[in-house]
Amino acid sequence: MLKASITQKINMKTVIIGSGNVAYHMAKAFMSSGISVVQVFGRNEKALAEISKETNIPYSTNALEDADLYVIAVSDSAIAETSLLITKKSALVVHTSGSMPLDTLAGNYRKGTLYPMQTFSKAKALDYTEVPFFIHAEEKDDIKILENVAQKISKHVSIANDEKRKYIHLTAVVACNFVNHLYTKAKELADSHNIPFSYFFPLIEETTQKIMQIEPKAAQTGPAVRGDKRVIQLHEEIISDAELKEIYKVINFSIQKTHGVK
Amino acid sequence: MLKASITQKINMKTVIIGSGNVAYHMAKAFMSSGISVVQVFGRNEKALAEISKETNIPYSTNALEDADLYVIAVSDSAIAETSLLITKKSALVVHTSGSMPLDTLAGNYRKGTLYPMQTFSKAKALDYTEVPFFIHAEEKDDIKILENVAQKISKHVSIANDEKRKYIHLTAVVACNFVNHLYTKAKELADSHNIPFSYFFPLIEETTQKIMQIEPKAAQTGPAVRGDKRVIQLHEEIISDAELKEIYKVINFSIQKTHGVK
Repeated sequence: MLKASITQKINMKTVIIGSGNVAYHMAKAFMSSGISVVQVFGRNEKALAEISKETNIPYSTNALEDADLYVIAVSDSAIAETSLLITKKSALVVHTSGSMPLDTLAGNYRKGTLYPMQTFSKAKALDYTEVPFFIHAEEKDDIKILENVAQKISKHVSIANDEKRKYIHLTAVVACNFVNHLYTKAKELADSHNIPFSYFFPLIEETTQKIMQIEPKAAQTGPAVRGDKRVIQLHEEIISDAELKEIYKVINFSIQKTHGVK
Repeated sequence: MLKASITQKINMKTVIIGSGNVAYHMAKAFMSSGISVVQVFGRNEKALAEISKETNIPYSTNALEDADLYVIAVSDSAIAETSLLITKKSALVVHTSGSMPLDTLAGNYRKGTLYPMQTFSKAKALDYTEVPFFIHAEEKDDIKILENVAQKISKHVSIANDEKRKYIHLTAVVACNFVNHLYTKAKELADSHNIPFSYFFPLIEETTQKIMQIEPKAAQTGPAVRGDKRVIQLHEEIISDAELKEIYKVINFSIQKTHGVK
């Protein structure tokens, strides 16, 4: 009985609310998996029109369409307010934030979370089947529904409550946003000495591939883990960027602490 | 005339000195490219025996073989002393360090550098054709010889003097060693909350692929660049590791400085 109702509900009408990177990619992901999205809704008409153009989903800035599932993909601080736009008690409403609790959703309806753990830029196409989705809901049946929806999009779907999702998000910030910033700083260094940044791509690729095969801790190389004071001192002398110098010191200290180097 | 002499010299007898990760991979790289390596020489007999077993190159701990090219792949602090073992005036002697100047080589012979920019672990096989090599030498003819040798091994060979090599090495430390440490810290976080680290592989992969297609600065996402004080404060509260907390603060500050976020 439950199964039939779930299968049915996968064909439920969906509205995506928001017009930023996450909304854009959610719209594309839902469409690519064959889930019916009846509207993208938001305030930024220009951005909505772009999403609409790429996905053929109608958009609106003022008349929210009736739906069974509402996916709120707006900035964290706008979730609560946005969630009050929905007044349909029988609807399932989810937000896509990594760090906001489920009960940020402030209306009177069924509530859940649908967190796609990926770095979204409009400029970069994505294979949504590889994006891990973390889902949760107040009701068991709704967890199953969201699991089914997410599994239509992605191969990697897991259940994660607020507490767990918070740590997943923090880990993603360290492994993705922070890593990207190190690449930004590395490129600045390379640029300022006329070294093509592409020279470092094989090294970057290898660093990434390696930690999928051996523990990152076991893969650590470089002056800090070797306790090479001469190179560390040399580097601190030649780094002119004040922020990078701080990063250099703090990460070296952490490497040496982690690996028991004195 | 020069060309003929260079072609001839590629078949020159090579000795690799050292028994660590770099010596191991240099021995494998030279062999794989068909350059004749007549000996691996060093102090650590057990490590030499292992290299010898994998490469079929004879080893010695006391009788240095006669050769045309000596590749010194020992730790930075041992280069000067090791370089004095070679007394053949007509030999070309190179070291493989990213941060030591060419004239660390202390003997009386032709001198050069052959710096493979890669993270070497014995546990992980490598495609040497993708490893960037940076070469230099005192004499123009020797630069050409080293260029030829390196091109037999790799598709990416560039000339870089001491000054340039120093910055290449620093950039590699930031883009590789530091990135790996962030992965180590991310895995610790994931482990401590029973989240399989493999969940983050698609994100890590995407982060890496992205900066090869768009500028890392343009690819920056996350709470810091959004100026999301709530998430930053939440993260600082839930990070229990003192070193990671410092890293979190310093990198956030640098992201905001780099992107002009207030």
